[in-house]
Amino acid sequence: MKVLLVFAHPERRSLNGALRDVAVAELEAQGHEVRVSDLYADGWKSEVDRADFPSWPEGERFAAGAASKQAFAEGTLTADVKAEIEKLLWADTLILQFPLWWYTMPAILKGWVDRVFAYGFAYGVGEHSDKRWGDRFGEGTLAGKRAMLLVTVGGWEEHYSPRGINGPIEDLLFPINHGILYYPGYEVLPPHVVYRVDRFKDADFEREAEQLRERMRTLATTVPIRYRRQNFGDYLIPAMTLRPELGEPEARGFALHVDATPTV
Amino acid sequence: MKVLLVFAHPERRSLNGALRDVAVAELEAQGHEVRVSDLYADGWKSEVDRADFPSWPEGERFAAGAASKQAFAEGTLTADVKAEIEKLLWADTLILQFPLWWYTMPAILKGWVDRVFAYGFAYGVGEHSDKRWGDRFGEGTLAGKRAMLLVTVGGWEEHYSPRGINGPIEDLLFPINHGILYYPGYEVLPPHVVYRVDRFKDADFEREAEQLRERMRTLATTVPIRYRRQNFGDYLIPAMTLRPELGEPEARGFALHVDATPTV
Repeated sequence: MKVLLVFAHPERRSLNGALRDVAVAELEAQGHEVRVSDLYADGWKSEVDRADFPSWPEGERFAAGAASKQAFAEGTLTADVKAEIEKLLWADTLILQFPLWWYTMPAILKGWVDRVFAYGFAYGVGEHSDKRWGDRFGEGTLAGKRAMLLVTVGGWEEHYSPRGINGPIEDLLFPINHGILYYPGYEVLPPHVVYRVDRFKDADFEREAEQLRERMRTLATTVPIRYRRQNFGDYLIPAMTLRPELGEPEARGFALHVDATPTV
Repeated sequence: MKVLLVFAHPERRSLNGALRDVAVAELEAQGHEVRVSDLYADGWKSEVDRADFPSWPEGERFAAGAASKQAFAEGTLTADVKAEIEKLLWADTLILQFPLWWYTMPAILKGWVDRVFAYGFAYGVGEHSDKRWGDRFGEGTLAGKRAMLLVTVGGWEEHYSPRGINGPIEDLLFPINHGILYYPGYEVLPPHVVYRVDRFKDADFEREAEQLRERMRTLATTVPIRYRRQNFGDYLIPAMTLRPELGEPEARGFALHVDATPTV
């Protein structure tokens, strides 16, 4: 297996840094190839702006989507973005590792998504018509690959439970898992979340390290989240609403988009 | 009223720029004072890193939370962050304006949150004990103020409806409205969302401009989202789970944290 780990923590000598080492060591012990994009170490630029598109005409009104489409098609994306796209195409498994800051990823990782997930690469792919709304949510450039979040959280697991005050962790991560990873085609594995990291002790670390090693050993066999595919009958197109007969009639919210029917 | 609008779009001559002008003009016509933080124009730095904390000892392992706490307490945050904190304290209403990119805010605005919402200012405020988990979710430094999102979206409103494929817009925005704005004390107004902006025509603009003007005229009177307060009995502390008798027994997800009981 070829694994790309994108690391979004400002301190290498941190719990996140130690967990990264555990993950990489276990993957390599299993014979997998591993590459790491260390966004802070690489001085990753977070903001989508005109400088990302050197071929966009000076003085012309800047339109990020159109500029991204043109630059991807012409091969004029900047070198840092091209390098990340090349790594995404190389890897069959992607791991995004980050501390949960304000209930989502740090800005530097959002900036990696905003800049690397180009038009024509991660979105705007395939036929757009009344019958088909692009190759996304189950299809796309990255279909056939797997992705997984590795997240550290300061609070307690209960605080992120179904009735916890922060909201359920799977709902908080839905915009990432479904909207960023499933969108361009990844099969998304359940996230690996490490809680209470603000008061971590040595004994906690060994327990967490072993759980993480187990996740790394089972990367290829873990059952992905069963998000519903867009273009295979579950949704009315172009309204893009779930067919009335699917899901519980009164149900709403993110859980609707996970197929909960029993598997054979 | 004193209004701070934080603008997170890379092109001033954009639909977002035009909507910003509409909002500011209407607010000023109503006699309100308006300040704008234009993150791209100001060259906002998005990444939380060691450079944000000049007084953090060189060579010492960098801990973002501890560094933020120390710098806020000692008054050694960087000038750009201090200026934003000053504006937040000045304003009684905050508007965050951004295009929805990958189902959340652009990196530059997440970086504004990550850097400006300092420990001791926006989190880590108040008593933390088995009975009380800080002044947050209904209390905090920014209590008594109002906040609102102004968001542009490429897709259709149906795609973000209760059964839409992207997930309901109120759930996608929950981590921002509840986790970033309600957390430090803001009363959060329902967001103003402009859909289908990729194919906007002149006629669309006038209709949308008038709807936005109406929101600006009613900023002070619009009923906030009725998120549940943390420290006033709805939650079990320290588990921070909603009391079993509240909400529908089978309910789960973000909607639980909005009080849906009829008002008198």
